[in-house]
Amino acid sequence: MENAHHVVIVGGGFGGLYAAQSLKNGPFQVTLIDRRNFHLFQPLLYQVATGWLSPANIASTLRSVLRHQKNARVLLAEAVDFNIAKREVILDNGIVAYDTLLVAAGSGYHYFGNDHWRGLAPGLKTIEDATDMRRRIFSAFEAAERSTDNDRTRAQLTFMIVGGGPTGVELAGALAEISRDILKADFRNIDPADARILLLEATDRILGPYPAELSQKAESFLRDLGVTVQTNTLVTAIEKGAVTLKYGDALERIPCETVLWAAGVRASPLGEVLAKRSGAQLDRGSRIIVEPDLSLPNYPEIFVIGDLANFSHQNGAPLPGVAPVAMQQGRYIAERIIHRSKGKTTPPFRYNDRGNLAIIGRARAVADLGRIRLAGYWAWLVWLFIHLLYLVEFENRVLVLIQWGWYYFRRNRAARLITENKPDA
Amino acid sequence: MENAHHVVIVGGGFGGLYAAQSLKNGPFQVTLIDRRNFHLFQPLLYQVATGWLSPANIASTLRSVLRHQKNARVLLAEAVDFNIAKREVILDNGIVAYDTLLVAAGSGYHYFGNDHWRGLAPGLKTIEDATDMRRRIFSAFEAAERSTDNDRTRAQLTFMIVGGGPTGVELAGALAEISRDILKADFRNIDPADARILLLEATDRILGPYPAELSQKAESFLRDLGVTVQTNTLVTAIEKGAVTLKYGDALERIPCETVLWAAGVRASPLGEVLAKRSGAQLDRGSRIIVEPDLSLPNYPEIFVIGDLANFSHQNGAPLPGVAPVAMQQGRYIAERIIHRSKGKTTPPFRYNDRGNLAIIGRARAVADLGRIRLAGYWAWLVWLFIHLLYLVEFENRVLVLIQWGWYYFRRNRAARLITENKPDA
Repeated sequence: MENAHHVVIVGGGFGGLYAAQSLKNGPFQVTLIDRRNFHLFQPLLYQVATGWLSPANIASTLRSVLRHQKNARVLLAEAVDFNIAKREVILDNGIVAYDTLLVAAGSGYHYFGNDHWRGLAPGLKTIEDATDMRRRIFSAFEAAERSTDNDRTRAQLTFMIVGGGPTGVELAGALAEISRDILKADFRNIDPADARILLLEATDRILGPYPAELSQKAESFLRDLGVTVQTNTLVTAIEKGAVTLKYGDALERIPCETVLWAAGVRASPLGEVLAKRSGAQLDRGSRIIVEPDLSLPNYPEIFVIGDLANFSHQNGAPLPGVAPVAMQQGRYIAERIIHRSKGKTTPPFRYNDRGNLAIIGRARAVADLGRIRLAGYWAWLVWLFIHLLYLVEFENRVLVLIQWGWYYFRRNRAARLITENKPDA
Repeated sequence: MENAHHVVIVGGGFGGLYAAQSLKNGPFQVTLIDRRNFHLFQPLLYQVATGWLSPANIASTLRSVLRHQKNARVLLAEAVDFNIAKREVILDNGIVAYDTLLVAAGSGYHYFGNDHWRGLAPGLKTIEDATDMRRRIFSAFEAAERSTDNDRTRAQLTFMIVGGGPTGVELAGALAEISRDILKADFRNIDPADARILLLEATDRILGPYPAELSQKAESFLRDLGVTVQTNTLVTAIEKGAVTLKYGDALERIPCETVLWAAGVRASPLGEVLAKRSGAQLDRGSRIIVEPDLSLPNYPEIFVIGDLANFSHQNGAPLPGVAPVAMQQGRYIAERIIHRSKGKTTPPFRYNDRGNLAIIGRARAVADLGRIRLAGYWAWLVWLFIHLLYLVEFENRVLVLIQWGWYYFRRNRAARLITENKPDA
């Protein structure tokens, strides 16, 4: 296999991993490059952030996922540049030559030009982000329990979640349950149910891409849980201990010690590097504008997928940065590479949109499945089924199911550890 | 209860937690102070360090353990000093007055005057220690996979464990299984089974406190797993990339990139503070020499237990720093406080030694249960039963059992994440 066609994949997220696995039976040598040694099931990160699951429950090492795929190898390294004339990826610790390159480096949070907010309002993209958020949430209740100053206590028990997309909605719902239910008997000086949880959304409704009726349902579920949903609200300043909000022309500065960021997303900086080298165009979110087959203009041997790609050939608007898009694009690339090796052509990529799902609290969700729209318990069952189905390794599925069951019936969350005390704490 | 006799407990380990729980039904107000928000089942930390269990599997938040104990409260704070004339504990964030004080602050690793070894050879006392060890172990295999320099690869695949007590033996056994079994199919450039694992012990046998026949059994189990057991071996230098060993008069410098410390232990620095304030004597390990009832000389209202106490009244030698000693001492103190409140006397503390257990690999252990000595499978079953019995919360027990079963039958370890990349990595 040493002289086989070499497919190099940068990024072991949904797109990269699915592409690697789909090349299993072809006459290829596959190299999967990632900075981290594991694939992360990002849609469940908020459950790590809120002390429900452990990091290992939603992560599988790339090596163990690919251990029996003889034509694949994993390289723990950071891709930093490309020499596309020589067909090479430049790593922090070496160089890898490719015949076909797939870049699936994903995205990170974006603070709309306010990068100093990053340390004050963490996003939720990595395991470390999630354990950092967990530390902030549970430390806030601890600080309030110790506090003797009423104003300070109020700020410590005020939580703001910026961004009313699925991650923001899921975080707000989980936080409400923590304060209203999970921590009920834990404290002696404070009542955790006094916590004020604000979900801030800049547009006129949460879950923007969903049908309006489901946005309304989600909002009413959140209100039932005690979350204050504030639409048409902009965050204009985040400082230590306070957030300034803007509604219309009015400004309000609210003391608040915990701010969680679930708003803007920006493609990996690797996209800019690749665009510079290849002449490809970037959109405003730094995503690379790709051809109908997800390749780069003039470079049919280079593909870009997932959060890093702007694919607008299907309905004019770019496809959203969600796991199903990345998975389907990964599988498509594998098929395209296999067809190409056989001299066959492949039709352009088409996303098969099976719908959107967001969970709110313990047993409620909203599901937009095209013609079928569900809200409440049944939507939650659909959510449960789909997430278990996709958890990469079987072991994770069993463990996650048990922990969910436990939490569901016993209303306790086991993973509420405050770890990794960072200097900014 | 505001005017009830106030028992303040410093430290939420086995000693402190068992004391707090045993005071449940008395007319006391109990305050448990800990720097961390969880009780940690330290005997299983090595399983977190070797990627078997997740941190949350062996930790329970102190608040959830004590949530239904109405006379107990938890204070997340660090005790830094004592005003024993005014009967106050000085915290990093306040002051707490006590009627009775119990100090159970535990111990940390001790590098025999070589504190610069700490960053090169981490010990295993905290969750962060364990995830740091895990990162070092799995990163070493990753680095070897990437390496193109044979000498360097050999150093990257050399693991030294300093100290042949139970922790060292358990780490060596787990590491051997990782390299011989768990990682078998994971790499393409290296064979993880080439890893060299050295267990270094300064005296003439490992597991010193055990009967000699069990030490020999343990050593032969380790050899079967491929561990090199080196007794009568001193570590004289640890530097980045190499360790210098001394056998008799001979010195040998061995290239090695991963050193794990399981040797000296020293009592918490809080012991020195308390000794200074109270005039109590310290032993060479900084433990406080306590009275037959575990109180301080001249201060019958102050008790010291667990790893921080030197109790030599039973058989001349101080009791070992193990969980059963701390648990029994915690319960004894509760009984003593209850008796005292009723004007009754309590006989001196006596440790009921039920034996020692150490596990070696997947299904072997040695057990010294007094008259009964077991080695192999049956000892392992005893180990399993006892550890499950003592895992604090029921949920943890179930999850741990499932993960153990999974590993046992499928030979996979789910929690092999490399997280928290620290600057020294």
